[in-house]
Amino acid sequence: MKNRGLLIVFSGPAGTGKGTVCKEFLKHNSDSVLSVSATTRAPRPGETDGKEYFFVSEKEFKKMINEDGFLEYASFCGNYYGTPKYKVEEKLEAGLNVILEIEVQGAMQIKQKVPGAVFVFIAPPSKEILRERIEGRGTETQEIIDKRMKIAENELKQIKNYDYVIVNDEVEKAVKSFEDIKNAERCKVLRNMNFIQEVCK
Amino acid sequence: MKNRGLLIVFSGPAGTGKGTVCKEFLKHNSDSVLSVSATTRAPRPGETDGKEYFFVSEKEFKKMINEDGFLEYASFCGNYYGTPKYKVEEKLEAGLNVILEIEVQGAMQIKQKVPGAVFVFIAPPSKEILRERIEGRGTETQEIIDKRMKIAENELKQIKNYDYVIVNDEVEKAVKSFEDIKNAERCKVLRNMNFIQEVCK
Repeated sequence: MKNRGLLIVFSGPAGTGKGTVCKEFLKHNSDSVLSVSATTRAPRPGETDGKEYFFVSEKEFKKMINEDGFLEYASFCGNYYGTPKYKVEEKLEAGLNVILEIEVQGAMQIKQKVPGAVFVFIAPPSKEILRERIEGRGTETQEIIDKRMKIAENELKQIKNYDYVIVNDEVEKAVKSFEDIKNAERCKVLRNMNFIQEVCK
Repeated sequence: MKNRGLLIVFSGPAGTGKGTVCKEFLKHNSDSVLSVSATTRAPRPGETDGKEYFFVSEKEFKKMINEDGFLEYASFCGNYYGTPKYKVEEKLEAGLNVILEIEVQGAMQIKQKVPGAVFVFIAPPSKEILRERIEGRGTETQEIIDKRMKIAENELKQIKNYDYVIVNDEVEKAVKSFEDIKNAERCKVLRNMNFIQEVCK
């Protein structure tokens, strides 16, 4: 019998290279897929329904909320974003690991709903380096930089609610750690009860 | 500040290739060392004190027992074998991971004493393959084979008390899983509190 896939929640402040690590990880791990969120915002040019997002109406989104159809959801700038439960479930059932690249708030919702989920936080090597990365992004004003740092600092305080922390000082090493965590979690005794029952018969 | 090393307990029935996996693992992981047991049995030709074992007298061994100097100990065929606590402690302090390749009984003693230890069980792909491996070892009588299978079966029943199970169908893959587990465990949030406090300051 095939083991269920892992639900891996992957969070970290903007500027920690979360997106890059995730993309590189998926390139080399065909046993894992990225969860696609549903959103009520309009598709941008070049975006395809079901690829970047599932584009749904606000009415549909609210119906799904009422039917407990989301693992987590939130609204930003007047639009809803959420992780559709059944889409994740069908992949896990097929034995695939599903990566949710989501914000800390969303992650804490998952923690309540999915007992076996794995929580991975990606952190900058230091606060100074995070500031450099946020400043280095472009020509943002000091005000915006300070605001982003404040948000990042609040997110960093949530590391303690995660299972693992990956320090991203080198993308390649961070990707390797992510892979190690995924592989190790699949060796957990509690995730191999079918095999254990079989070999103990 | 350097993180403490991991204490990794590695067990599995005879015939699962535990020794081979452990040896290969240590060849490629210079951050990890094998714990050397103390024993009261006499050194065999070619054995060096401090390499295969620490050879001690029964009087010394019993003194160490009384002083709570062992993480675990047991007696087999009239000789004592045990894991000296301070030897392990000094390596962990230096940031090295210490591998204890020990029997299930000893492992359960460690579980009581060391809350942060990691328990890894190496299992055969199936009971049939284990029997083949035990039979294939040489020209043992049916009685001895049956006795060994009985012992192995009792050990397999203990998998549920471990954290991870590695199925050894291919040595290379098993070594890789062992490495993944070690690396993932070092990313555990609870093992990185120094870093987390630093980055949250």
